[in-house]
Amino acid sequence: MPIVYYDIVRGRSRDQIRTLLDSAQAALVEAFETPERDRYQLVTEHSPGEMIIQDNGLGIDRSENIVVIHLINRRGMKTRTQKEKLYELLARNLKRDCGLDPADLVISITENESEDLSIGYGKAQYVNGDIDSATSQPRRGPSASRR
Amino acid sequence: MPIVYYDIVRGRSRDQIRTLLDSAQAALVEAFETPERDRYQLVTEHSPGEMIIQDNGLGIDRSENIVVIHLINRRGMKTRTQKEKLYELLARNLKRDCGLDPADLVISITENESEDLSIGYGKAQYVNGDIDSATSQPRRGPSASRR
Amino acid sequence: MPIVYYDIVRGRSRDQIRTLLDSAQAALVEAFETPERDRYQLVTEHSPGEMIIQDNGLGIDRSENIVVIHLINRRGMKTRTQKEKLYELLARNLKRDCGLDPADLVISITENESEDLSIGYGKAQYVNGDIDSATSQPRRGPSASRR
Repeated sequence: MPIVYYDIVRGRSRDQIRTLLDSAQAALVEAFETPERDRYQLVTEHSPGEMIIQDNGLGIDRSENIVVIHLINRRGMKTRTQKEKLYELLARNLKRDCGLDPADLVISITENESEDLSIGYGKAQYVNGDIDSATSQPRRGPSASRR
Repeated sequence: MPIVYYDIVRGRSRDQIRTLLDSAQAALVEAFETPERDRYQLVTEHSPGEMIIQDNGLGIDRSENIVVIHLINRRGMKTRTQKEKLYELLARNLKRDCGLDPADLVISITENESEDLSIGYGKAQYVNGDIDSATSQPRRGPSASRR
Repeated sequence: MPIVYYDIVRGRSRDQIRTLLDSAQAALVEAFETPERDRYQLVTEHSPGEMIIQDNGLGIDRSENIVVIHLINRRGMKTRTQKEKLYELLARNLKRDCGLDPADLVISITENESEDLSIGYGKAQYVNGDIDSATSQPRRGPSASRR
């Protein structure tokens, strides 16, 4: 956690999508100092006419490479500075690894509480002690959280 | 309300998806004591490479049966205990009714306010008196809320 | 910003989808007094069995024309009255422009903070001065926000 939704226009190959997700995850791990396997990524592909992404008048040129990212993250866990670092590293990584023009990147975050998550087995790992709420690391080792 | 988004990998039949949605709705009604017809479900299907769902290092084995559920619910309406019951009942029901391994279930919730919902006719039923905010039941009978 | 997600059943033509998005954007601009190019729209198409949208018992007749809209907007920027106006104008516009029965319209909003947005270049335009947080208008003209 965060859970991260990616909206893109249809046309990238499976390998290209994988590279994009690896690259974005690396940005997340670096900016948010989250565990490597704190990785929850979902991609939805759209027809070109199904994504209309403008710019509030800032004059940003969008293309069909546009990537819209939405993160659900726990409230109060990341500072404004960390979020700004995430945006910056996402832009840097996706340009470097996927050739994405930083003009083609839109990101939003919504926040919830530790009790608003279950990452498996029908349990709430961020409040039941399985995961350390501050670090997102397992608290008792892998096996303790099983059924 | 809640509005519930389901993300799955392509491959289930229409009947299997229906069973999954019925089963999840039964869990919701039981855990949240919400009306049967308080049912707002949307499924998005993905290619296998479009869902990368790991485990924070807890050692949870995911398969292509993975189901990621996101609920939008009103803030302050459900306690932590009710949410934990929801996660537990979703895992129980989906295992019983769909054979879903509880390791293949990830759930998140984000919350909004009563004014942040319109369930038809361009009205805000949770603040205009059509629906009882505490019970989510109609307040005046079915016909009163029409145009 | 808002970022607006539209869920519909597969079957509309590309032109019909464009009309729907134009119509909804006009409602948003009128109700929220937001700039024309504050436009971030994503459409996801579903099979009929993938959207089960009931009515809390209010007796609302849904059809396969159902449109479920979700907005992510900044917290505290819009009053309850403005949100109710948005719902009303979305129903009015989509009926007028697309023939959508207002019974087929469900809307939800979740809110985030100004720092929770990046609309391009890996920057946080609502907190770095590029966009006026109150009006959502560019503050320094189009060119200043580029790399």
